[in-house]
Amino acid sequence: MMAEIQLIEIKEEILSDNKKEAENLRKLLKDRKTFLLNLMSSPGAGKTTLILKTIERLKDRLRIGVLEADIDSVVDAEKVAKVGIPAVQIRTGGFCHLDASMVMRGLDAFDLSSLDLVIIENVGNLVCPAEFDTGAIRNAMILSVPEGDDKPLKYPLMFSVCDVLLVNKVDYLDMSDFDMQALYARVRTLNPKISIIETSSKTGQGIDAWSEWLEREVKAFFA
Amino acid sequence: MMAEIQLIEIKEEILSDNKKEAENLRKLLKDRKTFLLNLMSSPGAGKTTLILKTIERLKDRLRIGVLEADIDSVVDAEKVAKVGIPAVQIRTGGFCHLDASMVMRGLDAFDLSSLDLVIIENVGNLVCPAEFDTGAIRNAMILSVPEGDDKPLKYPLMFSVCDVLLVNKVDYLDMSDFDMQALYARVRTLNPKISIIETSSKTGQGIDAWSEWLEREVKAFFA
Repeated sequence: MMAEIQLIEIKEEILSDNKKEAENLRKLLKDRKTFLLNLMSSPGAGKTTLILKTIERLKDRLRIGVLEADIDSVVDAEKVAKVGIPAVQIRTGGFCHLDASMVMRGLDAFDLSSLDLVIIENVGNLVCPAEFDTGAIRNAMILSVPEGDDKPLKYPLMFSVCDVLLVNKVDYLDMSDFDMQALYARVRTLNPKISIIETSSKTGQGIDAWSEWLEREVKAFFA
Repeated sequence: MMAEIQLIEIKEEILSDNKKEAENLRKLLKDRKTFLLNLMSSPGAGKTTLILKTIERLKDRLRIGVLEADIDSVVDAEKVAKVGIPAVQIRTGGFCHLDASMVMRGLDAFDLSSLDLVIIENVGNLVCPAEFDTGAIRNAMILSVPEGDDKPLKYPLMFSVCDVLLVNKVDYLDMSDFDMQALYARVRTLNPKISIIETSSKTGQGIDAWSEWLEREVKAFFA
């Protein structure tokens, strides 16, 4: 059942026109009929667990691969491979983000024609990943309740570039002074069109809504 | 009671030998008898709240200033100024870390001869700040329980460069599968000399131990 993990080590940054690389990558994805989702968050907001829950929901309807990015470990890719999903691990060797050329190298390690959906788990960081177009079709972010409702004030670009925000670990709401209404207002001021879904991988809340959102986007891309 | 907030906007990175700048800054601090602490963590791990608790404990024994770094907000500096502590806000304008020259500019805005201790609240990020020597005398980091015990595997440099680790939000331990013993083992493998203190700003656990650690370091620096 354990799928193969391929490991890619980034040794140096290829200086290039990232915007152009990203556009080229989107053309390739359109061509191959593979949807690419870029998932971003702080360290520990729950990206890997959410990806595993998403795989549970969608694996019978979509052929999924996961592109894991980490400074220096393969633990997330191992978790994904364990459930039988092809995983590519990019070890960024200190780089704090993925750019389109790194993603292209990662995708080259998959057989794209056999995949409907590739999910990128970006480096855990609310700053740098927001600045680099990865070539993804949609950008998603997770903000977890323990991080606090003030994060849109402090990391506005991340909230601005995303199509969907998952407010995760809502099972922590009772223990915290997190103001959900204030969060929504702050996020919508930066990004009026963003979808917001409240989730908990622990209780399962919102996982269906999120999976439906993602499947809808994939189907719309294929149409 | 509200202290003045000074705002510094970083428009461009001054390319320089950061290591040398940092050494120069440490000489200046020795000269002025001001201890500089660099506090790092993920977004939302509890840096600002911990700084406020530290100020409560130490403000009658040490003259404290706070250097706040944020991509784009002054909310943290406002909280510090409200308790009567001089605050300088560096708006990094997208930069994901502070380097020694940015810190030098920030310290220039204080009257250093009137301060025993300046605490830097670095940009919320476990990646980039670890790579840049700020010129601080000691480096501290916060890892909060909701982030998970696997973070040393994924962000090893941060755990390696710090003198002390605060494992914060331990009041969340009951709700989580965080393995404290595994965390200690992972951290000590990377950094055998690091001090580890378990804290909760909510219950007050460990705040005395942390404040004592810091005061001891300041006194040793003055000796």
